Amino acid sequence: MHNIQVQLAKQPDGNPKASDFQVVKTDIPKVADGQFLARNIYLSLDPYMRGAIAGRHMGHQRLNQGDVIYGRCVAEVMESKHKDYKAGDHVVLEAGWQQFYVSGGEAADEIRKIDASIAPLSANIGALGMPGLTGWAGVEKLANPALGSTFVVSAAAGPVGGTAGQIAKAKGCRAVGIAGSDEKCRIVVNEYGFDACVNYKNKNWADELKAACPNGVDTYFDNVGGPMLDTITQQLNLYGKIIMCGLVSQYNRATDGAFHGHNMGPFVGKRAQLLGLVVYDYYAKMNEFMKAAVPLVNAGKLKFHEDRAEGIEKAPDHFVKLMNGQNNGKALVIIAPEKA
Amino acid sequence: MHNIQVQLAKQPDGNPKASDFQVVKTDIPKVADGQFLARNIYLSLDPYMRGAIAGRHMGHQRLNQGDVIYGRCVAEVMESKHKDYKAGDHVVLEAGWQQFYVSGGEAADEIRKIDASIAPLSANIGALGMPGLTGWAGVEKLANPALGSTFVVSAAAGPVGGTAGQIAKAKGCRAVGIAGSDEKCRIVVNEYGFDACVNYKNKNWADELKAACPNGVDTYFDNVGGPMLDTITQQLNLYGKIIMCGLVSQYNRATDGAFHGHNMGPFVGKRAQLLGLVVYDYYAKMNEFMKAAVPLVNAGKLKFHEDRAEGIEKAPDHFVKLMNGQNNGKALVIIAPEKA
Repeated sequence: MHNIQVQLAKQPDGNPKASDFQVVKTDIPKVADGQFLARNIYLSLDPYMRGAIAGRHMGHQRLNQGDVIYGRCVAEVMESKHKDYKAGDHVVLEAGWQQFYVSGGEAADEIRKIDASIAPLSANIGALGMPGLTGWAGVEKLANPALGSTFVVSAAAGPVGGTAGQIAKAKGCRAVGIAGSDEKCRIVVNEYGFDACVNYKNKNWADELKAACPNGVDTYFDNVGGPMLDTITQQLNLYGKIIMCGLVSQYNRATDGAFHGHNMGPFVGKRAQLLGLVVYDYYAKMNEFMKAAVPLVNAGKLKFHEDRAEGIEKAPDHFVKLMNGQNNGKALVIIAPEKA
Repeated sequence: MHNIQVQLAKQPDGNPKASDFQVVKTDIPKVADGQFLARNIYLSLDPYMRGAIAGRHMGHQRLNQGDVIYGRCVAEVMESKHKDYKAGDHVVLEAGWQQFYVSGGEAADEIRKIDASIAPLSANIGALGMPGLTGWAGVEKLANPALGSTFVVSAAAGPVGGTAGQIAKAKGCRAVGIAGSDEKCRIVVNEYGFDACVNYKNKNWADELKAACPNGVDTYFDNVGGPMLDTITQQLNLYGKIIMCGLVSQYNRATDGAFHGHNMGPFVGKRAQLLGLVVYDYYAKMNEFMKAAVPLVNAGKLKFHEDRAEGIEKAPDHFVKLMNGQNNGKALVIIAPEKA
């Protein structure tokens, strides 16, 4: 039995290409005392990986040629010599883009046991995983949007934006999404239940947003950064909040490449409150998040839409698609069937 | 008796020059029913005026050739046919750069009666006027800095920064100023009583700031914007606050000229809280501010340093000096003696 893994072939220059990656067959390490063997089932693909590969994302060293690409997986423990894990346990862990991973339970592996009975396994890397926690934390711990206020979120079809908007909606806000295709907007409105969604590729998207927010924008949950932030700031109400979560419009730039620079003047004029969000700060609140989110899932008020590719060797193409905004919903790779 | 006023000769291009202004002798309008005549004593010079002249500052229309320059004065009522004001009253009002002004008491004149017994008259356009209110509001209403935390403020020798730092110090913070000359730093430390002050014109100023803030920066009250903001953000503690008050480094740019664009990434990484401050929102709290500030003045804990020029015709040169950072403390023009 072998392990197939995806390694870095060379550092991407700007938008990543499939040829920046290499698919390699390796041996599976033996499980020593204090270790367990994880069989990876689903691999999460997320925009932050672009920065992580380049060493621009906190806690991630720049990868060299031959390094396994960073990535979080839903996995099943196959064999264990570790006291805390037993065969059959399901976990989410930082296992990289590969079929198998041997862990010693180190903190860096960020292992979290999951309960396969509460939701589909794959939700644990999406709406009920780190992306969902991100959306929840931005709404509940930073924005705290008022009942009846207007909550706008970009990358709304994705698991961070989709969860953020659905949680804001559950708290009595008007939820308005921004996404990059009509199909994404359909998911946002028809599946996630947002009040409206604007396709920012439309020439008049700013006017469409204005029409969708008749009382102005009270909160903007920003996953995108760049010129879109400047445009939405013009529609922000006085003292409006901007949750600075992601800058996906800026992630594909080459190392030390130019970023979109923001004029701070309009933020002052709006008396804006810009609040930086890093999900790592909220790991300890995972249980609090689940207490809020699981009932919403059960009530059909927190939905998720997945964009799946099958086979670990498809991960590079699927990641390229994600980084070009061509995914619809949470991007993941099926590495193996749920039942071995 | 004539009135001497300073008008716009032509819109400044970049840094203002004295030749952008013209000094003109006019008649004093007759005082009609419902009006009063103000004899201007002190004219306040403030960086926001640069934007106001160009129509880039909220509530101020772009000036045309021949328009009197915007400006707030301490004045004495000489003659009154207005029920709310009588001869001998002292007021602060938007009277423009001139010796005399006839007001109908309109809201746009922003008239505030002042008590000549509580502090020197000129303080009412400085530490006890709008600049002081700005500093106080940023500290008390937005930053709310913790006891023992480190509070950094730029343009610290000026009336906004100087008041902000002294109020933060009075609240038990470590107050660290940033200013553009050794003489300004001397004022900040020796007169205002800050714990330290860094001259940003020194090549190693960022290292000096680090040494002056051994526990990092908890609050940065930003009057300057531009690259200094990026440098200080590097020294901001996690969840640190940035009060976005002024952008004086950006005010001299030509109309539609390039501004310094900020990368939002570092703000996210620091989980920064950026809060926009516009003093107009706090006019209604002037009494609350005075309740806090006057006892500080009386206790010698809120000091102010003025940079005076004498004669209204000196206003253009003195403003140019201010906009080039060559003033020391609050820039004002003595238009007339306090006692007529």
